[in-house]
Amino acid sequence: MDSDYGVPRELSDLQKKRTLYQPQIPPCLEGTTVRVEFGDGTTAADSAGAHVISHAFPHTFGQPLAHFLRATSKVPNAQIITEHPVIRVGVVFSGRQSPGGHNVIWGLYSAIKIHNNNSVLLGFVGGTEGLFAQKTLEITNEVLSSYKNQGGYDLLGRTVDQIRTTEQVNAAMTSCQALKLDGLVIIGGVTSNTDAAQLAETFAESKCSTKVVGVPVTLNGDLRNQFVEANVGFDTICKVNSQLISNVCTDALSAEKYYYFIRLMGRKASHVALECALQSHPNMVVLGEEVTASKLTLFDITKQISDAVQARAEQDKYHGVVLIPEGLVESIPELYALLQEIHALHGQGISADKISGHLSPWASALFEFLPPFIRRQLLLYPESDDSAQLSQIETEKLLAQLVENELNKRMKEGKYKGKKFNAICHFFGYQARGSLPSKFDCDYAYVLGHICYHVLAAGLNGYMATVTNLKSPVNKWKCGAAPITAMMTVKRWSRGPGANPIGKPAVHPVTVDLKGKAYELLRQNSTSFLFDDIYRNPGPLQFDGPGVDAKVLTLSVEDQDYMGRIKLLQEYLDKVLTLSVEDQDYMGRIKLLQEYLDKVKYIVKPGCSQDVLKAALSAMASVTEVLSVMSTSSNAHGLL
Amino acid sequence: MDSDYGVPRELSDLQKKRTLYQPQIPPCLEGTTVRVEFGDGTTAADSAGAHVISHAFPHTFGQPLAHFLRATSKVPNAQIITEHPVIRVGVVFSGRQSPGGHNVIWGLYSAIKIHNNNSVLLGFVGGTEGLFAQKTLEITNEVLSSYKNQGGYDLLGRTVDQIRTTEQVNAAMTSCQALKLDGLVIIGGVTSNTDAAQLAETFAESKCSTKVVGVPVTLNGDLRNQFVEANVGFDTICKVNSQLISNVCTDALSAEKYYYFIRLMGRKASHVALECALQSHPNMVVLGEEVTASKLTLFDITKQISDAVQARAEQDKYHGVVLIPEGLVESIPELYALLQEIHALHGQGISADKISGHLSPWASALFEFLPPFIRRQLLLYPESDDSAQLSQIETEKLLAQLVENELNKRMKEGKYKGKKFNAICHFFGYQARGSLPSKFDCDYAYVLGHICYHVLAAGLNGYMATVTNLKSPVNKWKCGAAPITAMMTVKRWSRGPGANPIGKPAVHPVTVDLKGKAYELLRQNSTSFLFDDIYRNPGPLQFDGPGVDAKVLTLSVEDQDYMGRIKLLQEYLDKVLTLSVEDQDYMGRIKLLQEYLDKVKYIVKPGCSQDVLKAALSAMASVTEVLSVMSTSSNAHGLL
Repeated sequence: MDSDYGVPRELSDLQKKRTLYQPQIPPCLEGTTVRVEFGDGTTAADSAGAHVISHAFPHTFGQPLAHFLRATSKVPNAQIITEHPVIRVGVVFSGRQSPGGHNVIWGLYSAIKIHNNNSVLLGFVGGTEGLFAQKTLEITNEVLSSYKNQGGYDLLGRTVDQIRTTEQVNAAMTSCQALKLDGLVIIGGVTSNTDAAQLAETFAESKCSTKVVGVPVTLNGDLRNQFVEANVGFDTICKVNSQLISNVCTDALSAEKYYYFIRLMGRKASHVALECALQSHPNMVVLGEEVTASKLTLFDITKQISDAVQARAEQDKYHGVVLIPEGLVESIPELYALLQEIHALHGQGISADKISGHLSPWASALFEFLPPFIRRQLLLYPESDDSAQLSQIETEKLLAQLVENELNKRMKEGKYKGKKFNAICHFFGYQARGSLPSKFDCDYAYVLGHICYHVLAAGLNGYMATVTNLKSPVNKWKCGAAPITAMMTVKRWSRGPGANPIGKPAVHPVTVDLKGKAYELLRQNSTSFLFDDIYRNPGPLQFDGPGVDAKVLTLSVEDQDYMGRIKLLQEYLDKVLTLSVEDQDYMGRIKLLQEYLDKVKYIVKPGCSQDVLKAALSAMASVTEVLSVMSTSSNAHGLL
Repeated sequence: MDSDYGVPRELSDLQKKRTLYQPQIPPCLEGTTVRVEFGDGTTAADSAGAHVISHAFPHTFGQPLAHFLRATSKVPNAQIITEHPVIRVGVVFSGRQSPGGHNVIWGLYSAIKIHNNNSVLLGFVGGTEGLFAQKTLEITNEVLSSYKNQGGYDLLGRTVDQIRTTEQVNAAMTSCQALKLDGLVIIGGVTSNTDAAQLAETFAESKCSTKVVGVPVTLNGDLRNQFVEANVGFDTICKVNSQLISNVCTDALSAEKYYYFIRLMGRKASHVALECALQSHPNMVVLGEEVTASKLTLFDITKQISDAVQARAEQDKYHGVVLIPEGLVESIPELYALLQEIHALHGQGISADKISGHLSPWASALFEFLPPFIRRQLLLYPESDDSAQLSQIETEKLLAQLVENELNKRMKEGKYKGKKFNAICHFFGYQARGSLPSKFDCDYAYVLGHICYHVLAAGLNGYMATVTNLKSPVNKWKCGAAPITAMMTVKRWSRGPGANPIGKPAVHPVTVDLKGKAYELLRQNSTSFLFDDIYRNPGPLQFDGPGVDAKVLTLSVEDQDYMGRIKLLQEYLDKVLTLSVEDQDYMGRIKLLQEYLDKVKYIVKPGCSQDVLKAALSAMASVTEVLSVMSTSSNAHGLL
């Protein structure tokens, strides 16, 4: 089967044109000198969990942040790397394909070759299975030629997306040693990067010299934290899906007779649904996070949508568009509990056709209430991570049918007097995933690939390549790397027989922040979206002309400048110290103050939560200001 | 509900940019003088049916072709129209929304206003229902401003898409008279244009002065004939769908574990599936026309796909993409017969849940064999034209399931030794229909709208606006109009209780020509498509940069120069006559010859079939050549 991967592809005219696009790199990555400045040692956002994480990752926890600097920057203690010996690097796709993945490999290849033309990049063919089996393809410019700026993962393929069991970890280590790899780059989402961190720790412990670097590539957009603003692929996925949703909105408005229920990708988090709603202004969107937060039942959601349909009918409107994320089914408490029972029964080896007989009375009652098609889908064997086969569960059809039943009931009771409710259902999943990547994803992926080389050149292990200030143009992007352990949290896992032990640290998917600005924007407009049909069509993805630089709205509205704040805070702390030092009469107090400052520094180590950081920053800003004013006036008036 | 139509829309940046795009018009439409040349009177391609058609359309059958000429063309008998009194025109959307529809209205509006700024264009709000109810919106530049080059039909909306019953025809006539309309432009596909022809005939008979003009707008691409090369919307639909199919192909190739079964729009004809296959190179495509031609049963199709999956498994390939048109279900003989029985029972007023008890034994056996989900879908009440609710019948899921069953059976029997077959199904319907129209569709629709004015200015009734030479740039397009009756054929209809009487003339959907070049191209590559995964991604629709002028392949490869041939043949006939006239000794022969020539002229009247035309052309070319040589030599040698 490997013969399909990495072969030259027949390209359409547009694809050929795209292969000629050369992504920019920010100034800090230019040239052949790597300049790295190390920040403070990192901790974890979950301070309670930091202890657990540090125990699980003794070799890789607490490492400092790394910032890559431009040639002109004046940072006295930066490490300057001018010698670039030959290195051998391996790269593997782990996780669902995401537009832009190929450009990580291209960027990595370019950076490796710029710094030493004799260095080698090996791609593992067939995903993690290829890694375990040492199946490689040497990446060359020729191999890359028909994959530059192209979608899919078909340059190398992907398979089980796991490096987790002792057997898998050992196989990976054996491969890295046999192939004499200096570095291994893992391209994936939250679980693959958790695996990357574990592999880095194991390598460090086993004195395996291969350094492991992770790259945040997942169309779900849920690998976000203090260090990671966005994921490769999310921009493209949202643009392609927004186009399709908008087309459906236009269609709804033209005939005015159908309600469209559209299920979007997004398993643990509803970022895609949120962004697409902000782009295309459908009448309704039900986010998994809202359902979880309000503990909405299937009945509640049905009632909400039915009420909306009824309210629109009173305005003589019989069309509309409703978005839901595929993960919604696991957010609805009673369906989640039912799925848990079903999965447990699967785990006991009970076959799908017998499971309904083994359900608890309440679960059985719910199961029998559901339409036959959804029963069959709920009975599907769970995925390898024990979650339901969400792509196969047609929650949009379930909701459409329940809403129809509800409206028919209301009609019989004389409560709903409108026309018959007609629904058409869609699942927008795979048709976006293989898309040509947007300009943003091409650039972002290429730059991340470039950074991976810098991380390896700096000898770092267990880091993720990061870019911040992404809302600005590429030449303003800030490149760095953060230890993956600093992105971890510790959660209880209680699912199924194959579940992780309780309290295992991991990079967890970040859900939509219901207090965040993007969600606020949605809520502010929700009544208008519901009633006024202010549909908006961002149109097909463009590669030329104005609009090509449009970025996802959630990136622009969310306040993500964590890295900037960390730097600013450190400047405040230094300033407080400097200012205080002038007041040399009170040695005891000075000492006490320094202890306070150290304590603040410790609490707000990179990795702490954004809220803690903001509070510290606000406090320190005012302290600094007061002290500045005081010391200026005392100096000026010579009152000291 | 009307309040939603025609209101200014909130537009995205790209949409705003598109509103600024000004389509070109060909030279023959420029200026304020309309120059029209009339060709020979038309007949119908189906010479047996011509008699029936002429009886059904005594006032509008046999009218001549109209060609609109540029100012510089030297045609002595062209009609030159320089005076343009104020006219009042109505326009209505009839039929499913198709990208570009809005530009027909814009083009018509522009042409009307250029020729007389006091003329008025009224849009009927709410489709044909608006026409019957005299609900209008005066089209102005302001109204148009947020609809130029935009998708959907939400400027005016559409409803029942029928002007057929005596009641409907009378209501339409009353509206036209009440609103003092000089012209009525009907935008739609085959059925709407058949209705337009009927309306024109009725108006002519009733001395109603409103002239009716049809415009070929249907994303199915099945309103094609000697005069009509392409339909507005088809280009966009194929491009949007090809992008999505290609994305899915890329996805399949990245993970190599799924077969994707994709159902595309295309009810009576599989043009969309054919074009998309030529654009994106999926592994398989099953066209309704192939199934009809070979009388393939459900079992045959299942076997063909299963064989293909098995053959690929032998090459260690477990992924693939299969396209089918939504009309496939009506092409499979036994399913068609089953649907006929079901629809007849619906017609007898039997409710859906009781129908299965009334089926004939064989139909009942087939029905029980089918999976429950498809049974429920087959039982849906038929559409207004008595066809099945094709958008709701998940034929792709049926085939995927039957193939899975077949492969499981083969596996048990030891005949199939590959991995388990996994299918994922998609329906690509509504998500393309509301798309921003491609540049081609924007231009073509705008030009057709412009032509409608010229048709009205020339006082023609029952014509369709036509553009030929579409594969060339806009400034080479040839504009004209042909009587809709010349596009009609007479077919037996036997479907259901509400069916047309046998032998009623209509513009019928043209199916894929299995002897045509486009299909030949597909067949030539089918083995390579099946095994070599030479997927091709035309990418998202582009509005800027190179590639923006790409046209559908079926337009480029098909040999469509009927209009050119008609003109050439007439020149030959004239030449033969001229040459023969020189031989004045044999008056009797001359007369006989002229009778022959007249007979040829009669047989090859515009509207005759392409095959007859080609044969005539070939014969006449050789006659002309022989005669030319003979007369030259006899003149030269003075031997006469």
